[in-house]
Amino acid sequence: MGWGDLGAFGEPSKETPNLDQMAAEGMLFLDFYTANPLCSPSRAALLTGRLPVRNGFYTTNGHARNAYTPQDIVGGIPDSELLLPELLKKAGYINKIIGKWHLGHRPQFHPLKHGFDEWFGSPNCHFGPYDNRERPNIPVYRDWEMIGRYYEDFKIDLKTGEANLTQLYLQEALDFISKQQASQQPFFLYWAIDATHAPVYASKQFLGTSQRGLYGDAVREIDDSVGKILNHLQQLGISENTFVFFTSDNGAALISAPKQGGSNGPFLCGKQTTFEGGMREPAIAWWPGHIPAGGVSHQLGSVMDLFSTSLSLAGLQPPSDRQIDGINLLPVILQGKLIDRPIFYYRGNELMAVRAGLYKAHYWTWSNSWEEHGKGIDFCPGQSVSGVTTHTQEEHTYLPLLFHLGRDPGEKFPLSFASEEYQRAVGRISGLVQQHKATLVPGQPQLNVCDQAVMNWSPPGCEKLGKCLKAPESDPKKCSWPH
Amino acid sequence: MGWGDLGAFGEPSKETPNLDQMAAEGMLFLDFYTANPLCSPSRAALLTGRLPVRNGFYTTNGHARNAYTPQDIVGGIPDSELLLPELLKKAGYINKIIGKWHLGHRPQFHPLKHGFDEWFGSPNCHFGPYDNRERPNIPVYRDWEMIGRYYEDFKIDLKTGEANLTQLYLQEALDFISKQQASQQPFFLYWAIDATHAPVYASKQFLGTSQRGLYGDAVREIDDSVGKILNHLQQLGISENTFVFFTSDNGAALISAPKQGGSNGPFLCGKQTTFEGGMREPAIAWWPGHIPAGGVSHQLGSVMDLFSTSLSLAGLQPPSDRQIDGINLLPVILQGKLIDRPIFYYRGNELMAVRAGLYKAHYWTWSNSWEEHGKGIDFCPGQSVSGVTTHTQEEHTYLPLLFHLGRDPGEKFPLSFASEEYQRAVGRISGLVQQHKATLVPGQPQLNVCDQAVMNWSPPGCEKLGKCLKAPESDPKKCSWPH
Repeated sequence: MGWGDLGAFGEPSKETPNLDQMAAEGMLFLDFYTANPLCSPSRAALLTGRLPVRNGFYTTNGHARNAYTPQDIVGGIPDSELLLPELLKKAGYINKIIGKWHLGHRPQFHPLKHGFDEWFGSPNCHFGPYDNRERPNIPVYRDWEMIGRYYEDFKIDLKTGEANLTQLYLQEALDFISKQQASQQPFFLYWAIDATHAPVYASKQFLGTSQRGLYGDAVREIDDSVGKILNHLQQLGISENTFVFFTSDNGAALISAPKQGGSNGPFLCGKQTTFEGGMREPAIAWWPGHIPAGGVSHQLGSVMDLFSTSLSLAGLQPPSDRQIDGINLLPVILQGKLIDRPIFYYRGNELMAVRAGLYKAHYWTWSNSWEEHGKGIDFCPGQSVSGVTTHTQEEHTYLPLLFHLGRDPGEKFPLSFASEEYQRAVGRISGLVQQHKATLVPGQPQLNVCDQAVMNWSPPGCEKLGKCLKAPESDPKKCSWPH
Repeated sequence: MGWGDLGAFGEPSKETPNLDQMAAEGMLFLDFYTANPLCSPSRAALLTGRLPVRNGFYTTNGHARNAYTPQDIVGGIPDSELLLPELLKKAGYINKIIGKWHLGHRPQFHPLKHGFDEWFGSPNCHFGPYDNRERPNIPVYRDWEMIGRYYEDFKIDLKTGEANLTQLYLQEALDFISKQQASQQPFFLYWAIDATHAPVYASKQFLGTSQRGLYGDAVREIDDSVGKILNHLQQLGISENTFVFFTSDNGAALISAPKQGGSNGPFLCGKQTTFEGGMREPAIAWWPGHIPAGGVSHQLGSVMDLFSTSLSLAGLQPPSDRQIDGINLLPVILQGKLIDRPIFYYRGNELMAVRAGLYKAHYWTWSNSWEEHGKGIDFCPGQSVSGVTTHTQEEHTYLPLLFHLGRDPGEKFPLSFASEEYQRAVGRISGLVQQHKATLVPGQPQLNVCDQAVMNWSPPGCEKLGKCLKAPESDPKKCSWPH
């Protein structure tokens, strides 16, 4: 989902009354970022509070290449990483993940081995349908074991766009919340639904209801679901005791436009890129009775801050034996403070850009390769900024491209290298980069090796269902990451 | 000002609390249009309820060329046109224009000859400073006579961006409203301020206060002024008896970006073009006690509707001896109805595009000429859609380019000519076009002839001020309209 997909963020169809209401009752973050312009690394960053380059969710197979966890990935979240639910457990929290895990699907990466108590959802994206010979369909788990597979037991009709998944994930969330309220146990619910990822779907009641087509139907279903979750918290009388945060793991994927593509509002390009469209996200904090209604914040925020903020809410300290990139946003949310901190835009193993204040310096620019672009894969459809949306990886480390995101949120007009403003801003950002690089200890890259043998052939529980498939011979090789 | 310039429309700095509040208390129009992608024709359309091609505010000097009223224009609003204030007079309204008139500056075009009772402002844009030899500075009028000139008596400091004009126009509005309230006379106030037109300015208290630079400072000052006007109406106890509408006369001029350019949100291109960025406008209706708070409308609206709506509010009928293009929006505003009507996008003498429902068909596309583009004049900076943002005038009358503005608000993905959806939508729009063209009687074009002799050399009142200048010999010629 992109920054521009909600009515509150200027989507012209204005079809998200519940999320808009959530913002009106809570705090809207206008300058909130994910940690990477795609799914797996962003989710790993959210749960560890650490940049993917630290927690291992990146590749060194190529320079500045995006990588994630398709089902032939060998790696996943290292045991050495401390995940938010592992820490929250110490304060008595029951932790549940509903939806897409995406931090590795081999046994050692199972979410219940990393702090979660319950899981309903899938380890990978809902790609498919597959033939279960070349490639198995993605399993859906309940806790330790699979209970079926996408397309087989959990229908997704790619022709009509109909699928009931968001409704299933919603019901699961409502039930979990009810259970926790009844047992008076504190909980952490990570509602990590698959929608609006392509192939886009919505359940029947939402199909055809949006001006925006199928993608809009999916957004409307998410909006409706969030409204139901918030309403449920209120009905149960625990809304003033429950902190809720809504955000996305990357900008809208414009390659899926117009049929399945979302909106990044006035920002440049989309998913896969380190331009604003790829990494600035819709973000809303909600906590009635604590967060003043109608608040708006320009705090530079990150999904990694949800790690530190959640720990703080639970009365816990972040781990002190490692670098944590997230900051505690409570002073921002509750007292309206602004904390001076940079945003680092990574693509794979490369620091592509840095934002400090309203300035953003690009050290490297790249949309995608000419080769991929020639195949019709376009991360910036209809947009082209000379020297900026480059199709070769362009290095600007000696003279970074600098933008003022207040005057030029669309990153169209680099500041003159000769200007005093440039010198001052780049001077400041260079200092931040030096500091960052000096203390950076990259983690072991987890997304380098792929192997058909590790795919979801025979997930735990497959025997009971008669759904075990025979894995091919192991043939590990470097994953191919074209972007 | 562009669609994307207000917080309520998704401007990422969200610096328009008063306009956002106005929307929250009133009705936000998301699909509201001006009648032409530039100033004079739009303003003529607003005041006559008629398309510029009918009321004469267009040129036939070239095909599909934008034209306006620079100070060497010979033409202006014809006597045969009936302006909103002329009609409102019959219902006892006192009519005032504050700000830019722009419907011709020669004596016969004076606003007080066309229904206004009072005027404080200028006949043309605040361009300059001029040397008063080649070209006189633009006069500022109070009612019938000039009281000074821009840059000379009404300072605009182009270096610092400081000018007090919006404050003057605000005070004038507050005073007029107070006077009308005191005398219990109904009034029509056309608050047609110059800001945010380039050269952009703001008064001292707003300079440097916006994240967006000088343009943002100007937007903030307008926002603050609107807040003060609405507050004044409330203080005087007449807000429930006063209908207020906020909109703009064209999309943000992206040629002025990034230093003085605004935002058209997710839409394509800007001022001068018939893409959405050039003609879709921010629009808010406000009338406490009548318009339900927080309303949002997808009614296809037009500035010309303000003519018909205002007449309806005053209990008057629109003239029956001519074609009126505006519709009465009261059923939309008060009862939430949706009226099926098309939007016609004209550029000069050519119908460039038509919107019906969510479909928009382009019969002609043009951004600007290669020649102008080569000079650095770019109406679509950073945007380029192959076959759409064309630099030659491209005719598509046999196979219009069709966009679905719900799925593709940015006009990036024309629908396939072969699709059933295309056939259906274009079929319907073609019918509307035929009907429109069959009944269209173009007015005498007013914007064809320019003459240095007609400039503001010696406006009425110049003698008293010692500000009369000698006009050069008359030398009428075809105006040059490069866009």
